[in-house]
Amino acid sequence: MMMRSPQSPDALRNGGIETPSPRPRIQAHFQSTVTEQKLRRFNMLIVVFRFFSFCFSLASAIFMFANSRGSGLPRWIDYEAFRFVAIANAIVAVYSFFEVGASVWEISSGTTVLPEILQVWFDFGHDQVFAYLLLSADSAGTELARSLRVMDTCTENNAFCVQSDISIALGFAGFLFLGLSSLLSGFRVVCFIINGSRFHL
Amino acid sequence: MMMRSPQSPDALRNGGIETPSPRPRIQAHFQSTVTEQKLRRFNMLIVVFRFFSFCFSLASAIFMFANSRGSGLPRWIDYEAFRFVAIANAIVAVYSFFEVGASVWEISSGTTVLPEILQVWFDFGHDQVFAYLLLSADSAGTELARSLRVMDTCTENNAFCVQSDISIALGFAGFLFLGLSSLLSGFRVVCFIINGSRFHL
Repeated sequence: MMMRSPQSPDALRNGGIETPSPRPRIQAHFQSTVTEQKLRRFNMLIVVFRFFSFCFSLASAIFMFANSRGSGLPRWIDYEAFRFVAIANAIVAVYSFFEVGASVWEISSGTTVLPEILQVWFDFGHDQVFAYLLLSADSAGTELARSLRVMDTCTENNAFCVQSDISIALGFAGFLFLGLSSLLSGFRVVCFIINGSRFHL
Repeated sequence: MMMRSPQSPDALRNGGIETPSPRPRIQAHFQSTVTEQKLRRFNMLIVVFRFFSFCFSLASAIFMFANSRGSGLPRWIDYEAFRFVAIANAIVAVYSFFEVGASVWEISSGTTVLPEILQVWFDFGHDQVFAYLLLSADSAGTELARSLRVMDTCTENNAFCVQSDISIALGFAGFLFLGLSSLLSGFRVVCFIINGSRFHL
C-alpha cells in the first residue's frame, strides 16, 4: 500500500497526469506545511513528556536512595519493595535522560540516532516495559508503605515513612508521563508499519 | 490524506485513468484477498488473547473470593491488597467476557457493536486502563503476600498463603494477555486515525 502524500513521487506523478492546473501543487504545499507543523508539535510533546518523566523519576530515586538515617534506624535498603522502587526509578531516569537527548537530536537534525525502524521499535518497546516496571514497583512500594504503617515502624520513625511516601508519589507521576510517551511512541510505530515512515501523520 | 487501497473509489478512478490494461484489477483482487486474510488473522488473535485474559482473570478472582476458611482464620476480605486483587480481576473478567462477545460479533457480522470510532477508542482505552489496574493490583498483592510470609500468618495458615499466591499468579497471566490485546487494539486505533477505517492493514 502506498500513501498519496505530497512527498511520495507516485502522488506527484498522478497529480501531473490527472490535473494540469496548478491547484494540486498549492494544495500539496499547504498540506506539507500542515503536516510539518503537526509533526513538530508531536515531537515537542514527546520531548516534554520524556523530560517530565525524567524529572519525576530522578527525584523519586534520589528521595528513596537518601532514605536512611544512620544505624539502628530503618533503611530503604532493608526493604525489597523500596529497593525495587529506587532501582526502577533510577532505570527510568537514565532511560528518559537518553531519550530526551535522542528526541532533541531528532528534532534538530531531522534524523533518528539509530536507524529509523530500530529507533521506533526501541522507543516503543522500552516505553512499554519500563512503564509497566515502574507501575509495578510503585504499587508494591505503596503496599509496603501501608503495611509499615500498620506495624510500629512508622510511629517510631515517621520521617522514614513520609520520605518513602513522597518517593512513591513522585514515582507515580513519572509513570504517568512515561505512559503518555509510550502512547505517542506506539503511534509512531504504527505509522511506521502502515506508511513505511515515522513522518506521515 | 487518502489511501490508494483497492477499496477506495479514488484509487479505482486513478487506476482507470492511468492504465487501461486489466492488470490492476487482478492485482487489486489479489491485494484485497491478502488484506482480508490478514484482517481475519488479526481479529482471531484479538479473540484468542481476550479469551485467555478472561479465563485467567476469572480463575484468579474465583481463587481469591474463595480464600476464606471459617471464622478465626485469615480471610481475603481483611486485607486491602487482596480485595484489590479480587475486584480488579473480577472487573477484567467481566470486561473480557463482553469483549470476546463483541469481537466474535464483529468477525461474524462484519460490523462493530458500537459505532466504529467509538468502538476502537473504547477497546483501546479500557484495555490500557485495565491492564495498568490489574498489574497494580497484582504487584500490591505480591508485596502483601511477601510481608505475610515474613509475619507469622503463613506458618499458621499455609493454605491461605498458597491460595493467595496462586490467585496472584493467575492474575499476572491475565495481565499478560490483556496487555497483548491492548497492543492490538492500539494498532486498530492508529489504523483508524490514519486511514479512517479499522480495516486497512
